[in-house]
Amino acid sequence: MSTSCTPTAGGRSESPAGTPSLPGEGVRRIVPVQLAERSYDILIGCGLLDDPASWAGLPAAASALIVSNTTVAPLYAERLERALAGRHRRVLHLALPDGEAYKTAAVLETVYDRLLGEACDRKTVLYALGGGVVGDMTGFAAACYMRGVPFVQVPTTLLAQVDSSVGGKTAINHPLGKNMIGAFYQPVRVVCDLDTLDTLPDRELSAGLAEVIKYGPIADAAFLDWIEAHLDALRARDKAALAHAVQRSCEIKAQVVGCDERESGLRAILNFGHTFGHAIEAGLGYGEWLHGEAVGCGMVMAADLSARLGLVPAAFVDRMRRLCERAGLPVRAPALGTPRWLALMGLDKKAEGGEIRFVVIDRLGSARTQAVPEALLRQVIAAHGGEA
Amino acid sequence: MSTSCTPTAGGRSESPAGTPSLPGEGVRRIVPVQLAERSYDILIGCGLLDDPASWAGLPAAASALIVSNTTVAPLYAERLERALAGRHRRVLHLALPDGEAYKTAAVLETVYDRLLGEACDRKTVLYALGGGVVGDMTGFAAACYMRGVPFVQVPTTLLAQVDSSVGGKTAINHPLGKNMIGAFYQPVRVVCDLDTLDTLPDRELSAGLAEVIKYGPIADAAFLDWIEAHLDALRARDKAALAHAVQRSCEIKAQVVGCDERESGLRAILNFGHTFGHAIEAGLGYGEWLHGEAVGCGMVMAADLSARLGLVPAAFVDRMRRLCERAGLPVRAPALGTPRWLALMGLDKKAEGGEIRFVVIDRLGSARTQAVPEALLRQVIAAHGGEA
Repeated sequence: MSTSCTPTAGGRSESPAGTPSLPGEGVRRIVPVQLAERSYDILIGCGLLDDPASWAGLPAAASALIVSNTTVAPLYAERLERALAGRHRRVLHLALPDGEAYKTAAVLETVYDRLLGEACDRKTVLYALGGGVVGDMTGFAAACYMRGVPFVQVPTTLLAQVDSSVGGKTAINHPLGKNMIGAFYQPVRVVCDLDTLDTLPDRELSAGLAEVIKYGPIADAAFLDWIEAHLDALRARDKAALAHAVQRSCEIKAQVVGCDERESGLRAILNFGHTFGHAIEAGLGYGEWLHGEAVGCGMVMAADLSARLGLVPAAFVDRMRRLCERAGLPVRAPALGTPRWLALMGLDKKAEGGEIRFVVIDRLGSARTQAVPEALLRQVIAAHGGEA
Repeated sequence: MSTSCTPTAGGRSESPAGTPSLPGEGVRRIVPVQLAERSYDILIGCGLLDDPASWAGLPAAASALIVSNTTVAPLYAERLERALAGRHRRVLHLALPDGEAYKTAAVLETVYDRLLGEACDRKTVLYALGGGVVGDMTGFAAACYMRGVPFVQVPTTLLAQVDSSVGGKTAINHPLGKNMIGAFYQPVRVVCDLDTLDTLPDRELSAGLAEVIKYGPIADAAFLDWIEAHLDALRARDKAALAHAVQRSCEIKAQVVGCDERESGLRAILNFGHTFGHAIEAGLGYGEWLHGEAVGCGMVMAADLSARLGLVPAAFVDRMRRLCERAGLPVRAPALGTPRWLALMGLDKKAEGGEIRFVVIDRLGSARTQAVPEALLRQVIAAHGGEA
């Protein structure tokens, strides 16, 4: 990270994955997100969903609305309803259709319809129970309902636990672009129950690992080593390994977000691999590849771009490719054709004044953004199979 | 105002309406809105639209989008486009359909469609050229487009100049309630060109006067005297009188908003008459009465409520009724029937935990909110013609 505001690579990141926990406590960590009056904690551990301590101290309100989706609802909605029953007079529940394809204005409207149909007031607390789509939509609904009500992130996918539920980025998609309509709006707490990852399909676990891997090259070379050493444990859903991966990912993200809440600079490094990744998602149609899959492939391409700029050795590209492959991620770019690739990246919201800026690794554990010559992009697209 | 954070009733409010202005300057005032890093100025005067000084210092960006409506566009859009041509490489223009009935999610979507269709990036500046509906929708679009782009309010109605363009409340309506979906999002400047009021229909001028009148009872008894003395000049669109009315209104609003940006307390007093008013608008269907008309009638009802609570003498109700009548506002409530009235007010967003709170005048120039017995509300509804 090329800035004075640098995430600490030491300290808690050194704690081995197998740290013994106190009897009865299970694996439990707290990562604070420091944002002045918008500060909040990320709770990480097993059994959190049913533990009253997970919800203690949250805003009191007569009404709460749990927003989940049709996949998550049968698994966890009732448990969360029970856990919250003592805190709110009314705990409502709404299950959205599942998938990136439903992260739309029309589906968002159904959240408002429910809230207003039930006469929920401006103190109502929203709980986002699910993955990134549920979190993004529920957060955006909370940001806008009566100009802002509190919300709690209860991420049930690895991707949401390590990335999308932390930092306050909320949004819906528009037919012309992903996450184009949204708000910076912080949750009042994030509760990552690692047990919910037990029901996560392997493909989605892999997609989440893409975002975990991301934190290594952009911020913490030692964490990249750790991930390589513990990838099998992570894919086997070893709770201690997952706890460390989620904790360290959240620590890095929290520190970056604490420095640059509204993405005016540093925060952009969290988008490593995302410009390529968004092009894949938009080019194939949202939902064809999972976001994390697109980011995995995008990171390999962005690593290659960094190498072609002379910033990192070519061996780093191979290392990223192998790690993504081991994580179960696709590493060959879809053959959209070069002109379409370039067009899809040009409308990405990181384009400013017509210039396309990319997140590149300038040395292992450090990232920055820079404008990139189109010729180099064409090389990268060709090298990874993106040509038609 | 029952708080330590009290708008000053003195100072600039004492400047007589006929203050001689410097040669060439015309009538020109600046009201600062103090909100830390979100502070901005309100410019008030004649000839501001064409004056480069009105736009100097605003965020530079390659692209700008003027949002107006089909009524305002033919009058002022080209002039604003010309004035901004030197500041932005591209000045786009979008005219929305005119009226409260179009303050909807569907129409908001057309703003995003245009922005994305033109590949506008996250530095794009939006200009809201029009009345309250245009300002609310453009501000909300700016709040959400790519999670926030700068916007400038260029209000062309009296209501927008004295109320809706100042303070950062943005929103759209939902079929189940007015302004239910929105954001607190501050403009970077407000430019009130008094000349644009020349084309305002009399009925809309009267609607704007309702919000001007409002500032008297809630914050400044002397201003209420001044309005009574200058009402004919205001209705005749005397520029000096309008300048003073807009300035004093903005000063009071700016001070209230500066104390309570997100309406956690004090700011609610700005809703004097609005709980009744919103019920009228919703009960008759948005657009049947103008917002200001509903507020005018609502203020008479809220004054009566204050009198029935023993807070102000009955003579104050007559004074408010006469002043609203002189301003050209309706003062007899629509006969929606008492049950419908009560239901409409119960879903108002000021309802919290099921309790309906009203803004009442506790002495002339001072307001507060309080819960009110339903029996008293029934009396007020009946006394003003609201029964079926």
